[in-house]
Amino acid sequence: MITEAAHRARGAAAALATATRAVKDDALLAMADALERRTATILEANGQDVAAALESGLAESVVDRLTVNGPRVVGMADGLRHVATLPDPVGEVVRGATLRNGLELRQVRVPFGVVGIIYEARPNVTVDAAGLCLKSGNAVLLRGSSTARHSNAALVDVLREAIAAHDLPADAVQQIDPASRDDAKELMRARGLVDVLIPRGGAALIRSVVEDSTVPVIETGVGNCHVYVDAGADLDMALSILLNAKTQRPSVCNAAESLLVHADVADAFLPLALGWLASAGVTVHGDAATRRYSEEVRAATEEDYANEYLSLDIAVAVVGSLDEAVAHIRRYGTGHSEVIVTGSVSAAREFTARVDAAAVLVNASTRFVDGGEFGFGAEIGISTQKLHARGPMGLPELTSTKYVVTGDGHIRG
Amino acid sequence: MITEAAHRARGAAAALATATRAVKDDALLAMADALERRTATILEANGQDVAAALESGLAESVVDRLTVNGPRVVGMADGLRHVATLPDPVGEVVRGATLRNGLELRQVRVPFGVVGIIYEARPNVTVDAAGLCLKSGNAVLLRGSSTARHSNAALVDVLREAIAAHDLPADAVQQIDPASRDDAKELMRARGLVDVLIPRGGAALIRSVVEDSTVPVIETGVGNCHVYVDAGADLDMALSILLNAKTQRPSVCNAAESLLVHADVADAFLPLALGWLASAGVTVHGDAATRRYSEEVRAATEEDYANEYLSLDIAVAVVGSLDEAVAHIRRYGTGHSEVIVTGSVSAAREFTARVDAAAVLVNASTRFVDGGEFGFGAEIGISTQKLHARGPMGLPELTSTKYVVTGDGHIRG
Repeated sequence: MITEAAHRARGAAAALATATRAVKDDALLAMADALERRTATILEANGQDVAAALESGLAESVVDRLTVNGPRVVGMADGLRHVATLPDPVGEVVRGATLRNGLELRQVRVPFGVVGIIYEARPNVTVDAAGLCLKSGNAVLLRGSSTARHSNAALVDVLREAIAAHDLPADAVQQIDPASRDDAKELMRARGLVDVLIPRGGAALIRSVVEDSTVPVIETGVGNCHVYVDAGADLDMALSILLNAKTQRPSVCNAAESLLVHADVADAFLPLALGWLASAGVTVHGDAATRRYSEEVRAATEEDYANEYLSLDIAVAVVGSLDEAVAHIRRYGTGHSEVIVTGSVSAAREFTARVDAAAVLVNASTRFVDGGEFGFGAEIGISTQKLHARGPMGLPELTSTKYVVTGDGHIRG
Repeated sequence: MITEAAHRARGAAAALATATRAVKDDALLAMADALERRTATILEANGQDVAAALESGLAESVVDRLTVNGPRVVGMADGLRHVATLPDPVGEVVRGATLRNGLELRQVRVPFGVVGIIYEARPNVTVDAAGLCLKSGNAVLLRGSSTARHSNAALVDVLREAIAAHDLPADAVQQIDPASRDDAKELMRARGLVDVLIPRGGAALIRSVVEDSTVPVIETGVGNCHVYVDAGADLDMALSILLNAKTQRPSVCNAAESLLVHADVADAFLPLALGWLASAGVTVHGDAATRRYSEEVRAATEEDYANEYLSLDIAVAVVGSLDEAVAHIRRYGTGHSEVIVTGSVSAAREFTARVDAAAVLVNASTRFVDGGEFGFGAEIGISTQKLHARGPMGLPELTSTKYVVTGDGHIRG
């Protein structure tokens, strides 16, 4: 099944690879208009998914993420319109030179070809991923969650119709049966047919894709992000960054999950910080040094320090030095986003050089690590691996390159 | 076993990541000097491998690749000295901006961390890989062939001693037991400890690494490279490129393995080309159209068109159009290097846009697709995958990036 879909996707990819920006942008605008025009159909399909979710007793937060309404359809459509305004990464000359022998060398961005996305509940990912892949010249195979099957099917139908009406192959966007585990396995084994797989979702989903795939994977998103308050920190600044990083949106991967405090400022900072965290409704899991400042702090276990809570919880430890902070992050961090709050240039320099993560921040909240905030215009996910892309991934990260070499009968001596 | 070695490598990698260019270059020069100083030890160890290889009746070409002599040691040493002259990729700012809110964003090259190389016979790869990894700030785990075990052990000993004498950790370069299949398996499963695996060798080796690894892999090297002679080609140029691509060094991945000829020039080109190929000792495997021009042409099978001969053989087919040539390459090519010989701008434009390969060449030999020829100074291999690196890989391809974000108490609203 997947093999057939993947072959159709490869055919579509060949056409997409040479499509001009104008054609792709027209298709994106038509996709946006079609979503709005067919809102009733989309909401009806989504209603079936929501009803089933409620019936099977799924958590309220899951149902909320699953739910589509009028404004959310407009949001998806506007997302596509925004992607149409972004520069086309395809064809960009990344480097080039005329070699000593006169050969002209250009390294040019080209689409991957076929991209597979495996993701959980939210139907807006269907539209986002379709738009970003089309703009970057890739055909996409979408494997959403079975919870959102009717919603995704309706969205994909609408998108395909709009694409086909704009001289591009409908098979640029295809949905994979979300109920079939065999299909998911086949997708992960379709090396040579599928060029890259991007899992988006929880840690368990990502782990299983990484374990089972022979197709190259871009790992996204697990974030056990730390805020380290250095001896030389402005403590008001530290408090404001800590609260923002922990509480502004606790359910996302760039929220802070751990706080490390230099022993020299623990007396001055922790009583204040623990008070503010408590009034923000945050449960604190701390080491012995931290628990001295408040009886409400629970004893932290190894699991607490390794955890991506995605909730109003935080693990706290007091460290004796920047060195200890770096060692702690090296041991428990997931390589997502790590913050130092410090007034010291040399501490900032050392922390940014030694901490191995997609993003290292000085005196700023982890919450800025995001494609939109970085000015990339759009984001397909945040890579926590080192190969190909690291950190927020925009359109250029959905491309590969090709060397084009032009000679005049050049042969090698 | 590997887990221990990998942990030691991670420790070494942390020190290497912040080593200055001066320290790394000094170590590279010391490694080069040490190789030359210890030539006798190296040749003695190599003698054991060569004797064993002769005794077990390995092919002459394999024994030749295995053999180290005085000039070859000097060649390895000079290779290291050359790497010392290349720019350090670590620390290069790939992009940067001050965001609207004043946050300073920089994307900076950083080492991967720990690189694993799995390779076959040639001992010079041991030295090349150690030098390139050290320069790019990576610790390396070398898994060579058991045929070269004594040679590699001697080389690694000499390199480690020189590294340790220059204030860098000896564990920057470690050899993995080449006889243990369990160790190889463990290396491929050391996700989180080893950041990337680069297999170098034949198709079977590469396939097995790709199949078994959970560590991200950069696939290298299999090249079924085509020369397509278009209707608008200068036939003298086509002949000279064909002979160079096929015969200048037939055993390497960027040698041509297939020839496609447009039907319009078949009568003029093929009799000439088949004659020259025959006098160069090349066996031709052709389709019916090709066989009409010479009785010496053998009938080509599907396998011939898919084959990477690495020998004085070539598969030939006559095609009706550029479109057919592109379809043939799409079907049988391995995405390495593909040539069009043509006088037509529009044919060149169409071929380079539509052929999906690491390198597409117009009027030039496949043999130029090489890190040295491209001016990269050195090469760790030629990637035929689309993720991370494609085509010849130099020092920058041995790095990842990290975002460094500097604020002044910035929080997200």
